[in-house]
Amino acid sequence: MKIGILGYGNLGRGIEAAIRQNDDMELTSVFTRRDPSSVKLNTPGVGVYNVSEIVDHKDDIDVLVLCGGSATDLPEQTPEYVKYFNVIDSFDTHARIPEHFANVDKVAKENGNIALISCGWDPGMFSLMRLYSNAILPEGNDYTFWGKGVSQGHSDAIRRVEGVKNGKQYTIPIDSALEAVRSGSNPDLTTRQKHLRECFVVPEEGADLAKIEETIKNMPNYFADYDTIVHFITEEELQRDHSGIPHGGFVFRTGVTGLNKENKHIIEYNLKLDSNPEFTASVIVAFARAINRMHGEGMTGCKTVFDVAPAYLSPVSGEELRAHLL
Amino acid sequence: MKIGILGYGNLGRGIEAAIRQNDDMELTSVFTRRDPSSVKLNTPGVGVYNVSEIVDHKDDIDVLVLCGGSATDLPEQTPEYVKYFNVIDSFDTHARIPEHFANVDKVAKENGNIALISCGWDPGMFSLMRLYSNAILPEGNDYTFWGKGVSQGHSDAIRRVEGVKNGKQYTIPIDSALEAVRSGSNPDLTTRQKHLRECFVVPEEGADLAKIEETIKNMPNYFADYDTIVHFITEEELQRDHSGIPHGGFVFRTGVTGLNKENKHIIEYNLKLDSNPEFTASVIVAFARAINRMHGEGMTGCKTVFDVAPAYLSPVSGEELRAHLL
Repeated sequence: MKIGILGYGNLGRGIEAAIRQNDDMELTSVFTRRDPSSVKLNTPGVGVYNVSEIVDHKDDIDVLVLCGGSATDLPEQTPEYVKYFNVIDSFDTHARIPEHFANVDKVAKENGNIALISCGWDPGMFSLMRLYSNAILPEGNDYTFWGKGVSQGHSDAIRRVEGVKNGKQYTIPIDSALEAVRSGSNPDLTTRQKHLRECFVVPEEGADLAKIEETIKNMPNYFADYDTIVHFITEEELQRDHSGIPHGGFVFRTGVTGLNKENKHIIEYNLKLDSNPEFTASVIVAFARAINRMHGEGMTGCKTVFDVAPAYLSPVSGEELRAHLL
Repeated sequence: MKIGILGYGNLGRGIEAAIRQNDDMELTSVFTRRDPSSVKLNTPGVGVYNVSEIVDHKDDIDVLVLCGGSATDLPEQTPEYVKYFNVIDSFDTHARIPEHFANVDKVAKENGNIALISCGWDPGMFSLMRLYSNAILPEGNDYTFWGKGVSQGHSDAIRRVEGVKNGKQYTIPIDSALEAVRSGSNPDLTTRQKHLRECFVVPEEGADLAKIEETIKNMPNYFADYDTIVHFITEEELQRDHSGIPHGGFVFRTGVTGLNKENKHIIEYNLKLDSNPEFTASVIVAFARAINRMHGEGMTGCKTVFDVAPAYLSPVSGEELRAHLL
């Protein structure tokens, strides 16, 4: 199957790398809003084009992977490009998913294409775990923890503080909270009890460090509800020790069964990821395979990970799956 | 939806209890090979019938849950009853799944019914985790651990030893092996390194304990390849401390991504279950909902958990799932 990429940032490069690990896939073209000559791919022989030319490449693409941001890019791009292509995106503004779904579904159906929105690990694999676990254990509690990993939004927030030159923020799940959940005690956990926020900040020369720390720790929404640790480091240390984009997290469901609800069960799913964008890309690529097949069977409209029978994700036949993975 | 149960042992009772936790389901009838008057249900008002009468109840059952054993019951029962009913089973003889699938698929299609085989947690949820994780991380290693939990087969093997009156065996994953996998070091683990076997044995009066221990520890296939601990206890202690049927386990996939495979990722799914049959039943009941809906959309033939889009498992609408679980 032939894959096109729109947007060549961290996620786009992750898609490019993931395609190389899947023999049934080929990257045919990359589209950018920048000057195409300024974009250097890691895959020789693949064309880079300005996004204005995208429709000309309609026949070279089975699934177009949209690698833009959720704030402004995807709400425009996904309904626009599903006119011409089967598309997949990683739209992750949870509150706006119903609206995005409706917009994409309408255009996809009108044009006989298929779209899959909100793919990745959260939303994505974590959503699937919540759905499976809730269906299996209807009486119970859900817990989701994120990290240890880099939060882009919180890192951006740090960098907007006066006197800050650069910075990175790690979201860290608190061990005692994880253990309380694993014990099956169904704890009620406050925001502060679940996650810690650790910041590595490069100050501008002569900046007031105490004031920076104070401002970060009291920032509403981002930090005020958490215990926050602030470290001041140099730009060199930041580049040397904090250039990665690790992430991960935990999804739990604890529930009861039995005539008297006497038996407890704990389901845990956890991810430890060296590279958030590359893992996200790996999930997207598997679901791109799925929607390409589903479209081949005549399905159209907007889908989510909930609508995809798992067998569609694998390059392996149903016979082989049953013989070796069931 | 109306559910029938064939076979009222631990699993059948688990199905009965699980149905009570799902408002959209009703237990309509239980079938047994025993004298129906000897079977006392936990649900008032539900009929118990001899299995010979099952076809008379065709119209009262949307999905028939087959609760027999994999060795001899299900290979006969599933192809037989899919002539009349939509059916679901927990067939768990991994090596014979392809043959069982083919037998059931043929009859299901001839009769316009749907079947789901090999449902539960392994095969079942663990299989799903292996499939998702392999599709996402095509370059990597799979690890499955079972326990801590009671192995019926190993407990039976103990009880066949001369001089043994009763006994129970726990399969226990070894912590150092779990930690080695979690570290991402991709260890090669021997059978002995992965699991420990702990036996609680009630000897007959005057039995030769040393000989029993020796016989258990050297039993080929069951114990010889493992470190095995044997405790001798009384029947009272066995009943008091070991009457539960807990189980659980771990599925890992560790894999790499990136142009130079430089980034490691670890996916872990783990279950801690107070009651193996009740959790298995809870999974089966959710998939019974799914196949009932799929049949309502015209699907027939034999399916596995791989063929079921997750949204079918939930009583909640697609809109609600997208709004709250995605």
